[in-house]
Amino acid sequence: MTSDFQRADGRALDQLRTVRITRGFTSNPAGSVLVEFGNTRVMCTASVEHGVPRFKRDSGEGWLTAEYAMLPAATHDRMPRESMRGKVKGRTHEISRLIGRSLRAAVDLSQLGENTINIDCDVLQADGGTRTASITGAYVALADAIAVLKAEGVVPGEPLLPPVAAVSVGLVDGNVCLDLPYEEDSRAEVDLNVVMTERGNFVEIQGTGENGDFSREQLGLMLDSAEKGCHELIAAQRAALGI
Amino acid sequence: MTSDFQRADGRALDQLRTVRITRGFTSNPAGSVLVEFGNTRVMCTASVEHGVPRFKRDSGEGWLTAEYAMLPAATHDRMPRESMRGKVKGRTHEISRLIGRSLRAAVDLSQLGENTINIDCDVLQADGGTRTASITGAYVALADAIAVLKAEGVVPGEPLLPPVAAVSVGLVDGNVCLDLPYEEDSRAEVDLNVVMTERGNFVEIQGTGENGDFSREQLGLMLDSAEKGCHELIAAQRAALGI
Amino acid sequence: MTSDFQRADGRALDQLRTVRITRGFTSNPAGSVLVEFGNTRVMCTASVEHGVPRFKRDSGEGWLTAEYAMLPAATHDRMPRESMRGKVKGRTHEISRLIGRSLRAAVDLSQLGENTINIDCDVLQADGGTRTASITGAYVALADAIAVLKAEGVVPGEPLLPPVAAVSVGLVDGNVCLDLPYEEDSRAEVDLNVVMTERGNFVEIQGTGENGDFSREQLGLMLDSAEKGCHELIAAQRAALGI
Amino acid sequence: MTSDFQRADGRALDQLRTVRITRGFTSNPAGSVLVEFGNTRVMCTASVEHGVPRFKRDSGEGWLTAEYAMLPAATHDRMPRESMRGKVKGRTHEISRLIGRSLRAAVDLSQLGENTINIDCDVLQADGGTRTASITGAYVALADAIAVLKAEGVVPGEPLLPPVAAVSVGLVDGNVCLDLPYEEDSRAEVDLNVVMTERGNFVEIQGTGENGDFSREQLGLMLDSAEKGCHELIAAQRAALGI
Amino acid sequence: MTSDFQRADGRALDQLRTVRITRGFTSNPAGSVLVEFGNTRVMCTASVEHGVPRFKRDSGEGWLTAEYAMLPAATHDRMPRESMRGKVKGRTHEISRLIGRSLRAAVDLSQLGENTINIDCDVLQADGGTRTASITGAYVALADAIAVLKAEGVVPGEPLLPPVAAVSVGLVDGNVCLDLPYEEDSRAEVDLNVVMTERGNFVEIQGTGENGDFSREQLGLMLDSAEKGCHELIAAQRAALGI
Amino acid sequence: MTSDFQRADGRALDQLRTVRITRGFTSNPAGSVLVEFGNTRVMCTASVEHGVPRFKRDSGEGWLTAEYAMLPAATHDRMPRESMRGKVKGRTHEISRLIGRSLRAAVDLSQLGENTINIDCDVLQADGGTRTASITGAYVALADAIAVLKAEGVVPGEPLLPPVAAVSVGLVDGNVCLDLPYEEDSRAEVDLNVVMTERGNFVEIQGTGENGDFSREQLGLMLDSAEKGCHELIAAQRAALGI
Repeated sequence: MTSDFQRADGRALDQLRTVRITRGFTSNPAGSVLVEFGNTRVMCTASVEHGVPRFKRDSGEGWLTAEYAMLPAATHDRMPRESMRGKVKGRTHEISRLIGRSLRAAVDLSQLGENTINIDCDVLQADGGTRTASITGAYVALADAIAVLKAEGVVPGEPLLPPVAAVSVGLVDGNVCLDLPYEEDSRAEVDLNVVMTERGNFVEIQGTGENGDFSREQLGLMLDSAEKGCHELIAAQRAALGI
Repeated sequence: MTSDFQRADGRALDQLRTVRITRGFTSNPAGSVLVEFGNTRVMCTASVEHGVPRFKRDSGEGWLTAEYAMLPAATHDRMPRESMRGKVKGRTHEISRLIGRSLRAAVDLSQLGENTINIDCDVLQADGGTRTASITGAYVALADAIAVLKAEGVVPGEPLLPPVAAVSVGLVDGNVCLDLPYEEDSRAEVDLNVVMTERGNFVEIQGTGENGDFSREQLGLMLDSAEKGCHELIAAQRAALGI
Repeated sequence: MTSDFQRADGRALDQLRTVRITRGFTSNPAGSVLVEFGNTRVMCTASVEHGVPRFKRDSGEGWLTAEYAMLPAATHDRMPRESMRGKVKGRTHEISRLIGRSLRAAVDLSQLGENTINIDCDVLQADGGTRTASITGAYVALADAIAVLKAEGVVPGEPLLPPVAAVSVGLVDGNVCLDLPYEEDSRAEVDLNVVMTERGNFVEIQGTGENGDFSREQLGLMLDSAEKGCHELIAAQRAALGI
Repeated sequence: MTSDFQRADGRALDQLRTVRITRGFTSNPAGSVLVEFGNTRVMCTASVEHGVPRFKRDSGEGWLTAEYAMLPAATHDRMPRESMRGKVKGRTHEISRLIGRSLRAAVDLSQLGENTINIDCDVLQADGGTRTASITGAYVALADAIAVLKAEGVVPGEPLLPPVAAVSVGLVDGNVCLDLPYEEDSRAEVDLNVVMTERGNFVEIQGTGENGDFSREQLGLMLDSAEKGCHELIAAQRAALGI
Repeated sequence: MTSDFQRADGRALDQLRTVRITRGFTSNPAGSVLVEFGNTRVMCTASVEHGVPRFKRDSGEGWLTAEYAMLPAATHDRMPRESMRGKVKGRTHEISRLIGRSLRAAVDLSQLGENTINIDCDVLQADGGTRTASITGAYVALADAIAVLKAEGVVPGEPLLPPVAAVSVGLVDGNVCLDLPYEEDSRAEVDLNVVMTERGNFVEIQGTGENGDFSREQLGLMLDSAEKGCHELIAAQRAALGI
Repeated sequence: MTSDFQRADGRALDQLRTVRITRGFTSNPAGSVLVEFGNTRVMCTASVEHGVPRFKRDSGEGWLTAEYAMLPAATHDRMPRESMRGKVKGRTHEISRLIGRSLRAAVDLSQLGENTINIDCDVLQADGGTRTASITGAYVALADAIAVLKAEGVVPGEPLLPPVAAVSVGLVDGNVCLDLPYEEDSRAEVDLNVVMTERGNFVEIQGTGENGDFSREQLGLMLDSAEKGCHELIAAQRAALGI
């Protein structure tokens, strides 16, 4: 930790980037949200399909699944399109699965009827934190999609659970920094992604020390910062939804 | 042809939908444009790479290639993501190739140096005419990207040629309609896509009569309408670029 | 246009290459035709399957689909086999789709019963015009296959419509040339493929100016030439079928 | 074995079907042969490429590789095209490898220079024995291709070795039958493919008892019949080549 | 043949490597065997599934299928993992098919009921003869799996037939050697794999002369040696099973 | 938490399953280890390749990469083989990446020279904790492989860092349980995988609450248990290596 550490964008160590959540970004899916964490911009949609996958059939319950992808020109250097390469990268699979698990923590499948919600998070512009922005934005799209299902009368109960949000935190030159942009993320010693409920419980934590390990004490400080960030993000979700 | 034919959105038969071209839509690629033809919205980017594919190496010339894709939630019913299916659909390939050929008509490769421009057209919202909107928007992104290359001093000449734009025209209940939205496109007897230069020459014409054939006279009327549309689109391109 | 332009094979500008249509080329498929446009040789088969794809089930209608491919040694330089590469090229998809649309214009699906006709066009030797030869030959194979279905008594009506044929035309050194061999095709400024009915209407037109654009007047001259070519090809189809 | 066993086509038990070998079947590859064993028809080509695969580079030796495929309409019931399925079947791989090994026994790679010969065997019509017809026909295409290489002066030595031919033999209702058509092949107790040199040595034998095993004595009788068949096929190869 | 030929491991020409068959190697599949032929070690499992593939449905019969694979570190130099390459090699397909055919000769499918047995042969360590070890070990796993099915009461009859075993034999410097390790296999002139029943009949023979052909007499000597080897392997199978 | 909670296998809540680490399990790779956590058995190998991937070339540093896979019969119900499906599952990718990151924390790449170590973790039998067993066993294989490299004299420095081990911990019916077998894992409310260095620092933590979220306090209790487990596993690694 260095006392004179300054973040490139001038933020305080535990300060989020500007968060913007735009509902109704496109009109075809039941829920469509543009979420922005600073320069990171992700289009999150929630599409509804009647019926469920085979392993849920005749269970009376619904299902939620998620897919994440980057547009090829989202990053500083253009990346080859996964559909053209014929293979999906491990990173993409990993994030898709994380988003799916996180959002399933925000929906009571037993109240959804045999309907499936497909979450799509497509990154239009990447500047770090694309997976956490995706989860945060997708909750809002999910809420809108469930409202549509309820209005259609096809949902037997109240499937929407309280908000789930996600944020990244990392150790940069030994400093605990909240909501890392790409420049910090790429040189961080440790990167921790935290998905949290409104009550302050964890849905998922993933901490990685590719450039160094981290102590129990450092973990504690990072979780403190992440908790603060998630509470602010949940406030932004509630504000966007007007609930 | 029926004298009392009315278009669902109230447009005249030879009237374009509202066209909007937003430059600088995202910040990483050299050129990034959001183009809107009514409810059809496509993000068109032009990314620059130094060097050329093997078949152009040591030619002293540049290259331009294009890829088109739909986001899964762009359409009314969500479509499976091509990267997850492991195969790209024939339609996607076909449109990617059309965009590439059309934009190569707007660039003098011999003036580009050994640089490659990658055009990406990702449909955020689909309501008919996604390929024509893509071509029209991509020209603007291309112009911006070439300006960046020139500012970098890596382009030996003046590679940008005058505008190329594209529009669809179709026969709907026997009426020649310009710039078809999805609802008209899906029931049209004939669908014609026209790519045109500012001088009024054709770069590409593709006419298909899946639900019926069409006469030489009908082709003539459709080309008249397309020509009017392309001229208006080129004006919109020039206005957006301020040239 | 140059007054002293000579075609390498000595043909007049609006003259087809020698056309040969051999029925019963192989014996397993219901229809099997070898079509030759000069040195271009394509084996066109029409195979019959009872039942239709899912999207046509219980419609009472039939379906027709087509696949095009080049044998690896069909071209001057051997091309890698698509099955071994694990991907089908965009060009292949594009031509397969064109053949399918063109042949569906020659069959009344509502008269076919719930049967599927699979057209396969496999190029044994390529010398330009493989897609137009494919369409022209496939019509004859289709006619033979429908005759088999009728003989079997599984077709409720009269599904075969009048002939559809296709030809290429191009601008070579400014001259409108009909039915381009590879040598002309590869250096043509403009390449136009026309699919036409016996009545002289268009089923499909695809014109591309990869090495230059083309005027409305040039389009008119090319369509004149194509119309002449298609009429001659339809005569050859009728002669082969003895109808 | 049943004394009153009759083959459906009236042949003697140890009689080949009519063999036809047509050289110069197509004109682009260096060697192009249509081989017919009764109703089985295979187009065998030998294409020449300067250079060798990585594992042979700088060895001073050449290489030969082979690919086998069935056209989709070659069989009685149309089979899905392998390029469209995205995977090559195990049977296809297996036969391609067999053809490659067999033909490498007919060429002295050390005399070929660093050139690669690509054998393609595409089955136009299948009626049993497609792999043995392929090997037999491919030898003739190989001889023609080597003659081309020699005429070009790029071959340092005499790479062509004496003929290699192949035939199938099987046990049908206990009877040793030579050169099985599909109808016999599909109900044979044992199927044996034999690839043989002119001197009467084996290059490859593959015997399979899917519907029953076979004794050492039966193997001996089958090899006697195969030997007779291969000698006749080699005579046909020599006749076709005029050597 | 050289009178002073010595095998690297000191074995007699017609001597097997040490064979070990360990039942119950893992506990999840119905049959699980580790088979060792010297340093070659293969895990052979037989898993049971109720139901049969579509082509056997409602036949009253069962089915058996097999898959073979090498772990990436099984060979001296690590080989890329087939799942990561996205394609299965032809050799893998070929051996999987051989194992399936061979084991189907050891089971009476009409006595199995509509159950499917999946054989998996995964090579942990490769030193030549992996396919023959796989077949030999898989028979023991199959016997265990059928015993499980019978104990469950889901098998109507007695599906297990007498043992089937397999061994390789080759010509190395002109000497007939039994059960080749990698070092001999890679330089053998001829390689012959023989699958045999307890009665001494052949289920499959595959002989390949990639580095030279072989005479009828040499074939006879190789079969003599293989027969001796298979009888010893069947004794080992019976000993392992205690039958 | 329930005071009368009993684990099915009678272990204390914070007790590991029996751990066995067998070095030299196979002989071809530089390091080969069979690791067992109770019934979970994983073959972990470390193969050495001279040279590094492109992105590390001329860096003077080495690289380490890892692949994880399950044999098809490793699980209670056989799972389709990924190589045959043509796609690798997201879970497989995710675990492969985790193992790679974890083991890179145990090697100083700057001391390795331009060599690549390929870790392969192939699950022979799965009963929960396959990823943590893989990491724990792979460290031992890595140590053996580095010893080989050092003996060969190709490693400039001392690349092996102190041990890294991994363990799972979960909440089962509210109880913090260490080292979950499949039966507990499948019904746990929360699953946490912890990768730890000998000094007690974290390399990676991944906690997931698919069936419920978890509080900061519960996280603390789980980390306490994981820390105890990792220390015992590191002792087992050291014992196996005799260091």
